[in-house]
Amino acid sequence: ISLQPSRLASCERAQFIAMLGPERAREDHDARVCHARGKSYHDLLHLRAGPLADVPDVVLCPRDADDVLAILRIADKSGIAIVPYGGGTSVVGGVSARAPDFNAVATLDVSALDHVLDIDLPTRTARAEAGIAGPALERALAEKGVTLGHTPQSFEFSTLGGWIAHRGAGQQSNRYGKPENWLVAATLATPRGMLAADSFPASAAGPRLIDLIAGSEGAFGVITDATFRIHAKPARVEDRGYLFRDFESGMTAVRRAMQDEISNSMLRLSDSDETSFYGALSAIGAPRSPLRVTSRKYLDWRGFDERAAVLIASFEGTDSDVATARSRFGALASQLGAVSLGRAPGRSWRAGRFRAPYLRDPMLDRGLGIDTFETAAGWPKLAGLHAAVREALEKAVRDTAPYPSARAIVLCHVSHSYPEGASLYFTCIFPRALGEEIAQWRAIKNAASNAIAENGGTISHHHGVGEDHLSWMAREKGELGVEVLRAVKRTLDPNGILNPGKLIPAS
Amino acid sequence: ISLQPSRLASCERAQFIAMLGPERAREDHDARVCHARGKSYHDLLHLRAGPLADVPDVVLCPRDADDVLAILRIADKSGIAIVPYGGGTSVVGGVSARAPDFNAVATLDVSALDHVLDIDLPTRTARAEAGIAGPALERALAEKGVTLGHTPQSFEFSTLGGWIAHRGAGQQSNRYGKPENWLVAATLATPRGMLAADSFPASAAGPRLIDLIAGSEGAFGVITDATFRIHAKPARVEDRGYLFRDFESGMTAVRRAMQDEISNSMLRLSDSDETSFYGALSAIGAPRSPLRVTSRKYLDWRGFDERAAVLIASFEGTDSDVATARSRFGALASQLGAVSLGRAPGRSWRAGRFRAPYLRDPMLDRGLGIDTFETAAGWPKLAGLHAAVREALEKAVRDTAPYPSARAIVLCHVSHSYPEGASLYFTCIFPRALGEEIAQWRAIKNAASNAIAENGGTISHHHGVGEDHLSWMAREKGELGVEVLRAVKRTLDPNGILNPGKLIPAS
Repeated sequence: ISLQPSRLASCERAQFIAMLGPERAREDHDARVCHARGKSYHDLLHLRAGPLADVPDVVLCPRDADDVLAILRIADKSGIAIVPYGGGTSVVGGVSARAPDFNAVATLDVSALDHVLDIDLPTRTARAEAGIAGPALERALAEKGVTLGHTPQSFEFSTLGGWIAHRGAGQQSNRYGKPENWLVAATLATPRGMLAADSFPASAAGPRLIDLIAGSEGAFGVITDATFRIHAKPARVEDRGYLFRDFESGMTAVRRAMQDEISNSMLRLSDSDETSFYGALSAIGAPRSPLRVTSRKYLDWRGFDERAAVLIASFEGTDSDVATARSRFGALASQLGAVSLGRAPGRSWRAGRFRAPYLRDPMLDRGLGIDTFETAAGWPKLAGLHAAVREALEKAVRDTAPYPSARAIVLCHVSHSYPEGASLYFTCIFPRALGEEIAQWRAIKNAASNAIAENGGTISHHHGVGEDHLSWMAREKGELGVEVLRAVKRTLDPNGILNPGKLIPAS
Repeated sequence: ISLQPSRLASCERAQFIAMLGPERAREDHDARVCHARGKSYHDLLHLRAGPLADVPDVVLCPRDADDVLAILRIADKSGIAIVPYGGGTSVVGGVSARAPDFNAVATLDVSALDHVLDIDLPTRTARAEAGIAGPALERALAEKGVTLGHTPQSFEFSTLGGWIAHRGAGQQSNRYGKPENWLVAATLATPRGMLAADSFPASAAGPRLIDLIAGSEGAFGVITDATFRIHAKPARVEDRGYLFRDFESGMTAVRRAMQDEISNSMLRLSDSDETSFYGALSAIGAPRSPLRVTSRKYLDWRGFDERAAVLIASFEGTDSDVATARSRFGALASQLGAVSLGRAPGRSWRAGRFRAPYLRDPMLDRGLGIDTFETAAGWPKLAGLHAAVREALEKAVRDTAPYPSARAIVLCHVSHSYPEGASLYFTCIFPRALGEEIAQWRAIKNAASNAIAENGGTISHHHGVGEDHLSWMAREKGELGVEVLRAVKRTLDPNGILNPGKLIPAS
């Protein structure tokens, strides 16, 4: 991968090195390449393409919040853009080192801010530096018998600060909430100094500042530490599979479980195509056992056909909590015509829960592209949204196909649910249009995003805005709403050095 | 009550009358007096004093959101301050018609915007205009078998928009949440047009605009309608009383109930003085029955003394939910040395739940002042906060006493609780320093508020900021945090006509 030479001026280089030492102000090829982009499908395309146009001129690795503040002051004076970087797992261009209007771009890697500062059992809160990654954080909490319970697919690499900055969702968000729910307090380093936001159980002293930090995507400041709710580690975690006759009856089960407060940590409902796809995948290489044949016959006899939809439900808590919730959900499922699939689907889901992204490179090598699209909407809109996004993806893949018979595989599941609605998560697999892949990806992405916006969905339920969803922000927030976000940014970051080109459309 | 003549210029008068008709653009004495202030102790003092310095020049009563928008446009052009007014029950000066820097002050009374627009059972949400008051809203919801469950002490008069604007809390907030929890979407009329905020079950498209509307106190715009979560009306509501040995063990029970997720809609724990006070009050005129004497003896024998603290717990849900929660809470209480008091304390609490404010006028007539102060903090801070605020109130009352032996009665209870902490609600009764009452009130208010701020409490858990808490905002939010709020206001209300002098300290 070839790069342009660093644009960092010698005066700023000297200042950064004086402050951090040369090993924490890196301009070497590896540091610059590894911090250039996130982990989306088109990030992979760019990294595979050879020459990288947009890379950081320097990668700065502060040791603590004071370092972060000092870096921001130097950058602010010198016209250097700052791209905050946690685990680098953004799939929406949230860490792209692109800032053509600045003298240089520095990626600010907070991975050394990885200390757990306090685990306070009496308030069931903990405080940690923002750069700590999922496994280290949960290990420290587990030593005290507690958990945050935030496990996004990127869990192995992504960080506390990153989770908050892009309002992610862990796979168990039905129980543990999204960052906006579990965040209690946070410190934000800005070019204008530290913003220490809140820390009360609740307050009526005007809008809460942490609500502006959650979802700020590095555009308002760099989160240096956060205080968050913790929970006793559940005595029991149980995953159960159910087969519904169709996606609709499965959605009814999810809706009623949320509205009737059946305690659960996850209700993951695959649509028919995703159900068939994973069914077929798991059958590859498996022996044609009598049990499998009998099960299939039983399901045929019960009237389950290709419209069937698998749901994996997770329950957490004491033995008795889990038993109650499982029995309530089981009764609801059975009332809606579903059959229990026992523990096997949950086992294979749990074994592979962080694996899917690793499949992308091998698939790329075999000529297949894959991307995911996600949204959320109220219950009455979900069926229409599901159909529209599928259709848009299928059409876009046909229109950009490298050969006439090329078709998309579109899979979808409900992954996070609320009393008033749920999220939909689409996976689209398509043949790569070699040589035209960025254009192909953009056509597919635009088609999905327009279908989402036109059918009442949010442009993102948990991936964030970054660069990739920027064009849909004004539509979602309204022009006046975007102006409010701009005003907040201008106050905290008057020269606009923080993560330019992300979150907030240019005026 | 004598007033200055209206300062409204004839040109604007003509515009308002042309738009609304004369009966909706009132400059009569009654309309101006009744909309001059809220319902705090010092509001009552001002209203009783005779001449009212700050009154609206005109009271405007829009019929719908379009009217609101048109009024804001005229006011913005003409330098007229707008004070949004719902039920007028603010106790922090949130609706005071004071705006000396403007050509005139118009109070914008939204009580005609009182329609329920939609009750959507599939999404368990409803949408209503902002001026609807508690009883009308709950009546409409009850017809469909659902409830919002937001019942502040002002419930009879206060409005949906007011609840959201000042981030209030209903007495059952442990179950139904504060507005920031139940608010799904809202429309805000601003001098720059309508801001229609969100409506997704969850979103990662940057910070949510509704989080800026909750707590905006009429300073960012006028809430014209809101969508909120509704719940099935509970089959059963049960209140149970418990007597703890002391406030501390009662607090432990509340903390553990919240952290162990024992489902409840209210845990109202009185401190020892409040327990004795209400005990004595309920004994007045009651016959000295054998049961009463025996109960007292039993409690003495069990070692309960003047440190005892009453807790009223409310449980809501199905019969079985209520039975489970009650039995779990009962076991916890008994483990902590409490005894059950059965249903009587809950019955008398429920009968009088909206009554306390009505006692203020008769008490004033008898030479007694009364005010309330509220805050919230994490569990470890509550004991210190409780002691400090009590002490500050007692000292302030002594220092401003009309006669040497004058002393304060200070009562306190925990009224709203969270896994990480709880609110404290103080009532202070004191002899009026006749002729010096505003100064006396201010000394008492300052003492309580400083003690709150110095001991880690928020300046308000559910009353809001208004004028009365303005001086503590910079301390709580930080100077940079206040600048962020100012920037939001400047964007939506460039000329600062909306509720000037409230929420955000002048720069």
